[in-house]
Amino acid sequence: MKHYLEEDDWKIIESRFSEENAKASESLFSIANGQIGGRASFEETYTGPSMKGCYVAGIYYPDKTRVGWWKVGYPETFDKTPNSAYWIGVRVRIDGEELDLHRADIKEFRRELDLRDGILTRTFRTVLPNGAAVTVRTERMCCLFCPEMGTLRYSITPENAAQITIDAYIDGNVLNEESNYGEKFWDGAGHDPLSLTMRTRKSGFTVCWAMQNRVTGLESSGGEDREGYVAEKFSGTVPAGHTVTLCKYVGIVSSLNHAEATLRSVALGHAERGAREGMERLQEKQREAWAKRWEQCDIEIEGDVKAQQGIRFCIFQALQSYSGDYPELNIAPKGFSGEKYAGGAYWDTEAFCLPFYLSGSGAETARNLLLFRYNQLDKAIENAQKLGIGNGAALFPMATFNGRECHNEWEITFEEIHRNGAIAYAIYYYVQYTGDTAYLASNGFEVLAALSRYWVQRANFSEAKRKYVILGVTGPNEYENNVNNNWYTNYMAAWTLRYAADTAEMLRREYPNDYRRIAARIRLQYEEELARWIDVSENMFFPEDPALNITLQQEGYLDKEPTTTADIPEGERPLNQHWSWDRILRSPYIKQADVLQGMFFFPEHFDKGLIYRNFNYYEPRTVHESSLSPSVHAAIAAWIGNEEKACELFLRAVRLDLDDYNREIEEGVHVTSAAGAWLAVVRGFAGFRVDETGEPLFRSHLPKRWKSLKFKILFRGKILQILLNGSKAEVREIKK
Amino acid sequence: MKHYLEEDDWKIIESRFSEENAKASESLFSIANGQIGGRASFEETYTGPSMKGCYVAGIYYPDKTRVGWWKVGYPETFDKTPNSAYWIGVRVRIDGEELDLHRADIKEFRRELDLRDGILTRTFRTVLPNGAAVTVRTERMCCLFCPEMGTLRYSITPENAAQITIDAYIDGNVLNEESNYGEKFWDGAGHDPLSLTMRTRKSGFTVCWAMQNRVTGLESSGGEDREGYVAEKFSGTVPAGHTVTLCKYVGIVSSLNHAEATLRSVALGHAERGAREGMERLQEKQREAWAKRWEQCDIEIEGDVKAQQGIRFCIFQALQSYSGDYPELNIAPKGFSGEKYAGGAYWDTEAFCLPFYLSGSGAETARNLLLFRYNQLDKAIENAQKLGIGNGAALFPMATFNGRECHNEWEITFEEIHRNGAIAYAIYYYVQYTGDTAYLASNGFEVLAALSRYWVQRANFSEAKRKYVILGVTGPNEYENNVNNNWYTNYMAAWTLRYAADTAEMLRREYPNDYRRIAARIRLQYEEELARWIDVSENMFFPEDPALNITLQQEGYLDKEPTTTADIPEGERPLNQHWSWDRILRSPYIKQADVLQGMFFFPEHFDKGLIYRNFNYYEPRTVHESSLSPSVHAAIAAWIGNEEKACELFLRAVRLDLDDYNREIEEGVHVTSAAGAWLAVVRGFAGFRVDETGEPLFRSHLPKRWKSLKFKILFRGKILQILLNGSKAEVREIKK
Repeated sequence: MKHYLEEDDWKIIESRFSEENAKASESLFSIANGQIGGRASFEETYTGPSMKGCYVAGIYYPDKTRVGWWKVGYPETFDKTPNSAYWIGVRVRIDGEELDLHRADIKEFRRELDLRDGILTRTFRTVLPNGAAVTVRTERMCCLFCPEMGTLRYSITPENAAQITIDAYIDGNVLNEESNYGEKFWDGAGHDPLSLTMRTRKSGFTVCWAMQNRVTGLESSGGEDREGYVAEKFSGTVPAGHTVTLCKYVGIVSSLNHAEATLRSVALGHAERGAREGMERLQEKQREAWAKRWEQCDIEIEGDVKAQQGIRFCIFQALQSYSGDYPELNIAPKGFSGEKYAGGAYWDTEAFCLPFYLSGSGAETARNLLLFRYNQLDKAIENAQKLGIGNGAALFPMATFNGRECHNEWEITFEEIHRNGAIAYAIYYYVQYTGDTAYLASNGFEVLAALSRYWVQRANFSEAKRKYVILGVTGPNEYENNVNNNWYTNYMAAWTLRYAADTAEMLRREYPNDYRRIAARIRLQYEEELARWIDVSENMFFPEDPALNITLQQEGYLDKEPTTTADIPEGERPLNQHWSWDRILRSPYIKQADVLQGMFFFPEHFDKGLIYRNFNYYEPRTVHESSLSPSVHAAIAAWIGNEEKACELFLRAVRLDLDDYNREIEEGVHVTSAAGAWLAVVRGFAGFRVDETGEPLFRSHLPKRWKSLKFKILFRGKILQILLNGSKAEVREIKK
Repeated sequence: MKHYLEEDDWKIIESRFSEENAKASESLFSIANGQIGGRASFEETYTGPSMKGCYVAGIYYPDKTRVGWWKVGYPETFDKTPNSAYWIGVRVRIDGEELDLHRADIKEFRRELDLRDGILTRTFRTVLPNGAAVTVRTERMCCLFCPEMGTLRYSITPENAAQITIDAYIDGNVLNEESNYGEKFWDGAGHDPLSLTMRTRKSGFTVCWAMQNRVTGLESSGGEDREGYVAEKFSGTVPAGHTVTLCKYVGIVSSLNHAEATLRSVALGHAERGAREGMERLQEKQREAWAKRWEQCDIEIEGDVKAQQGIRFCIFQALQSYSGDYPELNIAPKGFSGEKYAGGAYWDTEAFCLPFYLSGSGAETARNLLLFRYNQLDKAIENAQKLGIGNGAALFPMATFNGRECHNEWEITFEEIHRNGAIAYAIYYYVQYTGDTAYLASNGFEVLAALSRYWVQRANFSEAKRKYVILGVTGPNEYENNVNNNWYTNYMAAWTLRYAADTAEMLRREYPNDYRRIAARIRLQYEEELARWIDVSENMFFPEDPALNITLQQEGYLDKEPTTTADIPEGERPLNQHWSWDRILRSPYIKQADVLQGMFFFPEHFDKGLIYRNFNYYEPRTVHESSLSPSVHAAIAAWIGNEEKACELFLRAVRLDLDDYNREIEEGVHVTSAAGAWLAVVRGFAGFRVDETGEPLFRSHLPKRWKSLKFKILFRGKILQILLNGSKAEVREIKK
């Protein structure tokens, strides 16, 4: 755990610079707008510790798979978001000396990210090795109102008269740190003094960056453009105490959204329009755009500033990482804040993110997330076939951009098949929430049918148990691999089969034309297939222990040593950085909610006593080494009235990154778990659910230290404002 | 399956060249002498399919580990035998055209490896693109009588007068095909016209190759020496029908066996001595040396030429791959015939090879194999510590040269811990066979104690079962990973603990001084530790099924689909080349003997009915996709009187490579399984075992089609000749 930021309701503040925290801050202060974004590395040259990263959504490079021992079925490539051109670049020289905080004496330093408007500011006073003292202020944003534009304002005030030069540049000669074979991902594809075009190797995505620079206090001194690099230069003598300011307006457009031939002119158009409107006006528009977002989904926690700052940071991350405008895009686990997890979509989206976007951004956004999978159904069917399961069965990939599997660890790629369950759950959740049963007819059922066809083949009938079993899986708790009858997986399979069968019946009844069309296309054998779905669903085996009266995470779990996390020797956590894999696997320790994930999805399916006993059995064995773990546990702890655990785990969920619980913040922010943290508030503390009639229900499980909890959700065309106060829950409708 | 070789009692013969078989033949005709060896690639230039490989025993390069997802505990390097200088190289030009069978018209071709003397010969008649017709004969050997010498005789007879040039060269500019990052493994370390010295990068082994060339019919035309390459050149005009002959004598010595400064002079000394003695005399010495080996361990099978050729091929492979002269060396799964498995030592050595060397090469050789592990005990203790198991516990590595673990798949490296069991078994087998209990006092017990300390910590007490369990292992059947209570592993653990405790008691009684010395050094707490060993041994859990009355390979095995190998669709074998890993894992299919491996080691521990039922249950589920599988199954089939299976699997064991059952012969010969095939004859068909009084017992399980079986073994200072005829077993002592 690391704690160096100030506490504040709305801002992230770093008031003292330390090189030790440099990379952590690059992650924490990263900004984005769903389309472009990047880490908060400095604009000017910095030779200290840094992992620069600017990213463009939807672009990927098929990096050649690296494994020690190849297994049949591994994908040839692991697609990853390439680090892309450094469009914020500014090179500053004061009296001939380059400004580089690594080699300068920093007198004052303050960095702020205002979550209300997503504008990142930095001010510092520094003395350079040549004695020149300057004060610098920077303001940077990824425009929410125009997702293909980013801006930068960079002001320098020398304390004594000085010769100052500024190169405002865009540098496309960048590499990924996480590259399997150290390959270059981009080739140059054009440049002129104000624009740079680059193309990804193999995948052939083209991106153009164009800039307009407006400078006060310096004269233009020419430009430079070459393969992968363009710069505009300014210089002049600046009197003591006078301020020179560069305003840099950058358009960033890609061949995903525009014809390749028009890229340069569109990008330049954005930059010019930005320059015309001017920085003040653009910042105003940015504030308005963000304010509109917050109006729909802010959460106010009275009485706990740490929790308040944490939850807003989480909501901000979720909002800036995914705008919901395109069904081709999804939510990368690290958003635009780092390279880890390579930028693809994981089951995090369905299990943790979709409810937030549904309530916070609207049904259209959530629907785009569902369509992302629907549009990739063919590839998921191919993927299942590759693993020997045919007849139109689908196994969605563990990680993907375009539907093609990217991941390559057999125990995850081939065995963490519960991801199929979350994909069905997301459809169910969306339909329950919106009442949009037409989605089942247009798209949802096709996916459910393909998932059901997968489960009935993936399960097999055990003669020994006289039940269906699912052998050789990895559950959500990835600290168990290749186990038999993971309760969560079996439950999600059985539930999906039942839900798909019910949906088929509903469609036959209520959408007969759609039903006939789909059934013909997917060659559904109504009688035989549905009977099979129901048979497997009803005769699924579920491991449990009658003595403890709990469900068992998997068969054999009770053979493990009966220790809890309290028995882990000091200094050995996180386990995955200290213990060999076999030791982790045979230990009772749990990475993230597994049995409890299922109870979190479907609390109404289970007796409250069972949830209580399971929580009390499993949570003490859970090390929460997945970012996705604390939020689910916090919610359940709230339900069962374990206030202490609820608060502890909620803080861990919302401040995971701010306080660096998992000691990896340098790699980036946990965006998908940030969206999940919202669940802890709304589903957990506020007990939100939609009943069978489509009514939203709330039930307060507020911790005593919280004076009140206020939040808004979008629900069936309205904005609902919910106020919780002690055990009281008050709902107000606001017309949208 | 591939079948293109002739059948012969003593020879391997290829009578027609086909490029399709080029790499297969390079493997099958490979020759070695335990110290040097290599694949049977052509001496002259060949631009067709080929994987050249010349190897020097004990030399390794620490190749940087390549994995997709790093796990704590993985070794940094995967040591591998480097492909080394091509010392057999000859470049031939006829009237200016280079001799290259890939671009020539082959009129006749015959390659023979005589197993009686290890001399590889090749004759061919070919017409070059320029019309020149020549007949060539080559003879090559790795001298058994002088393991640091190899020779080559290369004769060319032109049909018309021709200008012929020959470059006799040694080329050190070679790469490994199986290199993780395409690195070069060698640097040049010296050269002169007749010698080449190279040094491995990082590991710093130095090897010198020196040559003497004697040519009749051509004149010397100078030489060439440069970094990594030396050549001596000869040329002249040769009348029609006249034969020119190059005799190349090569000394190959390494810094493993000689001071670095002396390498060149020692290597040159070998080459000069060879040249002085001449090829005829050297070949005679080779025949004598091999005849001596065969005298001790030939097996004669009357009535089955395929089996006869197969078993001799196996014995030949075992003899040429490991001479037993140095405890620093071990048996590579591919011997000197390829790069796969990287040349390290695996549990194959203890489980499959040691019995052969004990009977075929002698107790000293087997003892060197035991000392190999004994000398690496400290590293095995470090290895266990790295995986969290301390107190002097040892986990021997999955693959190693110097004791350091090289392998990096968590399910194998960390979990295939049964290898510890084979290491204990090898000690037991050796002591039983030789009566050499003093070995336990000098070395054996220390290893047994460290293994026992491992097992008592690796097992844990299951409250649910009230027994000790061993969770998260991979058994010999690597088509199951991370299973709980693999019967074989549990059995080997329990047996080791008991054997170690008995040995401790025996030593206290019979070797009290040795015992005190060891107990002090390893800080053995006699009472407490032995009590623990016995407790865990006696209370180990063993999965079994009372209904089928069989032992269970692991818990949950009976939940699998009740299919047998007959249900595998055609064209889908071998499974590991067709099925994704998860599908293999959850299938009932078994790669190699698992339960049956334990019954093979200890037939006297089990009721014959149980062995019979287990065989009949598991063999039909076994795909034998490990080279180590058929021999064990053949032996047990012979015991239980399943003659058909015994013969089928025996042929598969001994002709695995000759008939390429596993479709991978191009990668090299299966040397360790070849040694294992011997077990099928001696332990299986001849029912050999040593009783408690040290008497060798035999019992004939001969197939009807074999008229007789005759073989010799070295036993306690004597050579025993065993003749089996029908059900009769006759033993004759031959004084040694």
